[in-house]
Amino acid sequence: MANTQFQYVKKFEQDDSLLLNTWLVVRIDGRSFHKFSQIHSFEKPNDKRAIGLMNQAAKQIMEEFGDVIIAYGQSDEYSFVLHKSTTLYSRRASKILSTFVSLFTGYYIYNWKNFFPDQELKEIPSFDSRIICYPSKKNIRDYLSWRQADCHINSLYNTCFWCLVKSGISEKEATEQLRGTFSNDKNELLFSKFGINYNDLPQINRKGTVLYRKIEEIETIRNDTNQKSISKKKKIIMDHIDIISEKFWKENPILTEKRRIK
Amino acid sequence: MANTQFQYVKKFEQDDSLLLNTWLVVRIDGRSFHKFSQIHSFEKPNDKRAIGLMNQAAKQIMEEFGDVIIAYGQSDEYSFVLHKSTTLYSRRASKILSTFVSLFTGYYIYNWKNFFPDQELKEIPSFDSRIICYPSKKNIRDYLSWRQADCHINSLYNTCFWCLVKSGISEKEATEQLRGTFSNDKNELLFSKFGINYNDLPQINRKGTVLYRKIEEIETIRNDTNQKSISKKKKIIMDHIDIISEKFWKENPILTEKRRIK
Amino acid sequence: MANTQFQYVKKFEQDDSLLLNTWLVVRIDGRSFHKFSQIHSFEKPNDKRAIGLMNQAAKQIMEEFGDVIIAYGQSDEYSFVLHKSTTLYSRRASKILSTFVSLFTGYYIYNWKNFFPDQELKEIPSFDSRIICYPSKKNIRDYLSWRQADCHINSLYNTCFWCLVKSGISEKEATEQLRGTFSNDKNELLFSKFGINYNDLPQINRKGTVLYRKIEEIETIRNDTNQKSISKKKKIIMDHIDIISEKFWKENPILTEKRRIK
Amino acid sequence: MANTQFQYVKKFEQDDSLLLNTWLVVRIDGRSFHKFSQIHSFEKPNDKRAIGLMNQAAKQIMEEFGDVIIAYGQSDEYSFVLHKSTTLYSRRASKILSTFVSLFTGYYIYNWKNFFPDQELKEIPSFDSRIICYPSKKNIRDYLSWRQADCHINSLYNTCFWCLVKSGISEKEATEQLRGTFSNDKNELLFSKFGINYNDLPQINRKGTVLYRKIEEIETIRNDTNQKSISKKKKIIMDHIDIISEKFWKENPILTEKRRIK
Repeated sequence: MANTQFQYVKKFEQDDSLLLNTWLVVRIDGRSFHKFSQIHSFEKPNDKRAIGLMNQAAKQIMEEFGDVIIAYGQSDEYSFVLHKSTTLYSRRASKILSTFVSLFTGYYIYNWKNFFPDQELKEIPSFDSRIICYPSKKNIRDYLSWRQADCHINSLYNTCFWCLVKSGISEKEATEQLRGTFSNDKNELLFSKFGINYNDLPQINRKGTVLYRKIEEIETIRNDTNQKSISKKKKIIMDHIDIISEKFWKENPILTEKRRIK
Repeated sequence: MANTQFQYVKKFEQDDSLLLNTWLVVRIDGRSFHKFSQIHSFEKPNDKRAIGLMNQAAKQIMEEFGDVIIAYGQSDEYSFVLHKSTTLYSRRASKILSTFVSLFTGYYIYNWKNFFPDQELKEIPSFDSRIICYPSKKNIRDYLSWRQADCHINSLYNTCFWCLVKSGISEKEATEQLRGTFSNDKNELLFSKFGINYNDLPQINRKGTVLYRKIEEIETIRNDTNQKSISKKKKIIMDHIDIISEKFWKENPILTEKRRIK
Repeated sequence: MANTQFQYVKKFEQDDSLLLNTWLVVRIDGRSFHKFSQIHSFEKPNDKRAIGLMNQAAKQIMEEFGDVIIAYGQSDEYSFVLHKSTTLYSRRASKILSTFVSLFTGYYIYNWKNFFPDQELKEIPSFDSRIICYPSKKNIRDYLSWRQADCHINSLYNTCFWCLVKSGISEKEATEQLRGTFSNDKNELLFSKFGINYNDLPQINRKGTVLYRKIEEIETIRNDTNQKSISKKKKIIMDHIDIISEKFWKENPILTEKRRIK
Repeated sequence: MANTQFQYVKKFEQDDSLLLNTWLVVRIDGRSFHKFSQIHSFEKPNDKRAIGLMNQAAKQIMEEFGDVIIAYGQSDEYSFVLHKSTTLYSRRASKILSTFVSLFTGYYIYNWKNFFPDQELKEIPSFDSRIICYPSKKNIRDYLSWRQADCHINSLYNTCFWCLVKSGISEKEATEQLRGTFSNDKNELLFSKFGINYNDLPQINRKGTVLYRKIEEIETIRNDTNQKSISKKKKIIMDHIDIISEKFWKENPILTEKRRIK
């Protein structure tokens, strides 16, 4: 029973390596998380435990793959940006995206009990993933801006929606009431009806979560000679800041810096 | 903060839908399972618990996706065959393969404790996946034959290897001793030195695991009229049989039958 | 001035080889042939010279590429079917489709004077091309049926249209008059108003052109011994027959026969 | 004979649109031009007529497609660079590359008699083509440098080779004599044996041909008022200059300028 006569089937695998010198985004999206969040009684509009669990899984992905230079998460999705010079898995699309989504799922389930100590996992969470190439720094910044603007829009909407529902009207009525409203209308509604200044809400809800690497200088003093030496190391920072405006990118030249320190 | 100015980035996603009218194989492969199996003290050459866990995860994938008509697993890999007529996720490659590998990882971890009650999960298992199109019935059968022939080759080798190691020689010496040997040599070694007739070993080790659907007739008798009625339903069968030769395919016309009963 | 520092740019070429074991169709379409036919005063609705020129170019493509088993042409388009086993140019899409369209353009221009002896070529004709994979015999037959049904529909319409225009009404009026009509209406119009029985028109207009290979037995008699020998050779046949119904395919088992005689 | 039942075959065409915001190179290569050049008695190592004909065809391509910002030709190949913002044919790879190669072939044959008035076209010339995406300005410049360095290497070699052959030795002996030689050796050989200073040879042979667009100011004076007005227009320039060093790109900011004037 040799397998030589069957090995020809390997040739049907088609090359899916991604264009060189482009920034790669792997985006992971929760599957049926609306239902999943109901089953596990997620708090609305934002469940701190659920967000913490997503962030933890994403951080572990970044620890494993040094070529991920920044990651951004909101709601049940996470985007990982790989440096344009990456040669991870020879840039094979299916290898990269399947590995990321498998690990993310694994970390999510494995860490569940740490974030939901009083809530048993009743159903398997699952995610899908895709991978997209972006040729320029502008494109990749616009991608991240797109996701953060989306976070803002959803966050404002959901805050209104759940305030209304908690005030006693049905989900259907809340949907009706918000149909066609603009940002201003929603801000006004929150303030006048519920006394909430949207901008005072936690940054984590309004901005989502940014993971990036920052160089840290570590000072070491030799015991015998008292000689100081400074070594540099990259550390993963978790923050909930604006990545649409220039400020973040000026302070963190993630997309432009030379990649010597891993 | 509208996201309209950024939405153009969506257009960078490239269509990856797979050629119509081809059989799709999603193959899931364990990442670094050599190390994973050592950490969790898998029995060698075959750990019944580990195989059972793989089979359980695969079965749940089949239960979820009716278009998977047959699946085949061995060692730390599993192949799922989707019917050529499938329109699952509009046949988008990344969507299908990421969903499968995410769910598989999820089921694997979730069911761990049922198969390894005395062995804590110390590290996240992870898998990668790929998807391949096969135009003809012959191609898809040859693909499955390739994997089962591979199972046989590995199983015979590993049986010899671990017999030698358990007999007291080092792994390196065992590797040396088996280098360049043919099937006959290995069968002979097992029989003469260890009194083992390879063909008497459990089918599950020698043949791997086949999951497929079989139509079951269910007879129902009405209480009031005593009238019999027969309904048909597809049931998932788990078996460890030869799928290289004709017999299985004659008895189970999986690739040729009309797909009316889901 | 070595080119070694620049050679890395070669790696940006992406693999475009087509799925194995699928029938390949290269379709060539005239670019702006409406205008091209006006400039060169093509007869309407069908110009025998123009059709002859297309067929000649297609025949030369078939002579050059033995893996083209059948070709079908109508109007300003031609489809070439390559056998599913072809390994021409390692099945690289761009290589195949660019070579075909370049040669086709070349033959068209080169042979122009033979088909249009009294009509100078005033403008460059050009074509685009695409390549499509079909997994099954049914698919490839349906593709050819689609093109021939299209030929019929266009031919019937154009015959009506030009009869009306030649009878004295404007092109705009003719378009109006035919809007929303069915096949029956058009057949009736031709018969009642112009005394034309559509089915009596030349097959070449109604069915387009089919090029295929047929085995020919060649009898040779040796001069000295008078010994007869029979050799087989494939010859290209040009015909204008129905390829939608079974008859053609029964008489010419092009898609099923073993490919020993080239 | 409706074609509705067959139209499903259209769905087998797979999307081949190229990644947005990347520079596109269409390279056209002569097929079997070694033989073609022998049949038509091209002068060696460079035939002015043949080069002129290639350049003419390329110029006509540029006239037709405003998105081609620069083209580079040498020997029997031509590369066309489309601006990264191009939406020509929705960036469909097969549509672009087939149209370019068809037109190029057409122009080449159509203009043949103007460049080879005493040499009948005995055989169809043909070309293949491919299309490549480059994300950055550096990549696209390196691509062009790669082709021009290749031109230099071939030109130096061929000059030596044909000097040797014309001096009386066989082609085989010339090949032998040049095997393993470096640039310096070849320059020395040309100078010492044939009195040729390679750098004095025509630029067109050593540098190939560059086609690019330059803004031209056109001064118009109104007859009645004597009022001057200046309009800007892009004109195609044909030159044989170095495009590897900075100078050309500083003087012609082709890759960086805003694309307002078409």
